[in-house]
Amino acid sequence: MNVAQGDVWSPVITPFDADLSVDTERLVAHARWLESHGIGLAVFGTNSEANSLSVAEKQALLSALVESGIDPARLMPGTGHCAIADTVTLTRDAVGLGCAGVLMLPPFYYKGVSDEGLYRYYSEVIERVADPRLRLYLYHIPPVAQVPLSLALITRLREAFPEVVVGIKDSGGDWGHTQALIEAFAGDGFAVYAGSERFLLDTLRAGGAGCISATANVNPAAIAALAANWQAADADDRQRELNALRDLFEGYPVIPAMKAATAHFSARPDWRRVRPPLVALDEGHSAELVQSLEAMGFAMPGLVEVSHG
Amino acid sequence: MNVAQGDVWSPVITPFDADLSVDTERLVAHARWLESHGIGLAVFGTNSEANSLSVAEKQALLSALVESGIDPARLMPGTGHCAIADTVTLTRDAVGLGCAGVLMLPPFYYKGVSDEGLYRYYSEVIERVADPRLRLYLYHIPPVAQVPLSLALITRLREAFPEVVVGIKDSGGDWGHTQALIEAFAGDGFAVYAGSERFLLDTLRAGGAGCISATANVNPAAIAALAANWQAADADDRQRELNALRDLFEGYPVIPAMKAATAHFSARPDWRRVRPPLVALDEGHSAELVQSLEAMGFAMPGLVEVSHG
Repeated sequence: MNVAQGDVWSPVITPFDADLSVDTERLVAHARWLESHGIGLAVFGTNSEANSLSVAEKQALLSALVESGIDPARLMPGTGHCAIADTVTLTRDAVGLGCAGVLMLPPFYYKGVSDEGLYRYYSEVIERVADPRLRLYLYHIPPVAQVPLSLALITRLREAFPEVVVGIKDSGGDWGHTQALIEAFAGDGFAVYAGSERFLLDTLRAGGAGCISATANVNPAAIAALAANWQAADADDRQRELNALRDLFEGYPVIPAMKAATAHFSARPDWRRVRPPLVALDEGHSAELVQSLEAMGFAMPGLVEVSHG
Repeated sequence: MNVAQGDVWSPVITPFDADLSVDTERLVAHARWLESHGIGLAVFGTNSEANSLSVAEKQALLSALVESGIDPARLMPGTGHCAIADTVTLTRDAVGLGCAGVLMLPPFYYKGVSDEGLYRYYSEVIERVADPRLRLYLYHIPPVAQVPLSLALITRLREAFPEVVVGIKDSGGDWGHTQALIEAFAGDGFAVYAGSERFLLDTLRAGGAGCISATANVNPAAIAALAANWQAADADDRQRELNALRDLFEGYPVIPAMKAATAHFSARPDWRRVRPPLVALDEGHSAELVQSLEAMGFAMPGLVEVSHG
């Protein structure tokens, strides 16, 4: 196994200034806060608005995170783009900086592409990066990318690149599919991550690695705690608590809602900003969300301190 | 009207070398050949594998095309990317080089985005480019991008930027939708292009501008001839001939099939290459396609000469 069982990562949300440029300091502060709660940093994920960032922006941010003292062994940047050259550029940077791995979307413009075409894409990237340190986690997210990664494709990639293709994030939202991935591949150490903490306990009980979850941005401690104590007697109760909070966020567009919560609990209202085509939560919905969160006793302890350090 | 009625453009296919780098000379030759048949050059379209090219590659190619003597007034590059910064970079280049316009995909990673978010995306791009010479053609291609552009969004963009947002390509494949666009917007000069020559005659009769069609890469002269003579007595017969050829190409994955035909009729076998995730037609299907084309009396006159000039 390349990772310990009970591993939680978060696609770190990305803060923007008034001109929509990235606020690097605020990103580093949020990453430090997540790291302090035991969460790995899957920067440049779907919930990071990664595809709304240019490759050059992501290169600069990744360097800044490592230079700020974030442990690269806790970084798993998303590096998959539609163009192989872009994927190779960012993946090489990640490997060179010592990142734990990369989480790689398939090329997501063309739809209905063949397994053969996807195999050629991933193998071309791996051969161009040409670095034995590369650890590649596949990113299966058909509701957004609309390009699924089949079990046959995963099998073929693992056979061709057993030391490189070492895991997958399943953001399909279908537990049956995550279970099938675990049954097919987890036995010999392939790391299967659920794409939501909703499936954390089921994933760990079935032999999966953990989860890579958006809402770990706002609820890191409780998710990490369940991952660390999944064999405890109260695990099902804790899972239900995680689900209740997740339900609340899923009542809104999730990225704007996480940013609104982070804005409130960090006392940094500028966190609410998103890049188009996303739209920030309006004042009314933000206030409503915060009220619901506070009614649940929710807090983001330590975030104010790290955000104003 | 910004364009003459009876206007035909082609998303120019992109030639690759054995290492998958772009063969600029071969691209220029193909563009010249299309130009000589009266076809406008919608380089960097879906059928150009544009999203498999980096922004830097597209910038270099656009400069090379203009430097080679291609008339920029006959260039309409695709410039829409998921990240605003990338869209702005390539759009600025296109405007600076004097291109007739740009064809702009919506940001296509997130699905189910709101009209408000898409409005903010396009208006942010237009405001950042900040050049009165910009002529923006919207690119509606829900089967691929999975992000449709609603009539309400188009109305709002036209109202805000009447001199800039001047047309649309409808690649939805649904004539009823193209007809609705023409009825709603063509009356005051908004240019509605069908995304396939299959709808060329219907589009022109209804008051649309013409078509921007993949298969204009291989069948430019006949498509341009119908566009120029759409009021002739034999127009319906000519439309049926265009459709028969289109049917043949649509019996295969269209991009690989157009490349296979171009490889054969230019006597440049390297034209068959595509970038992953696309897969080139194999030898058997290429031979079968060429045989069918030759049985129809199809040719690409002048292509050998320009390709070996």
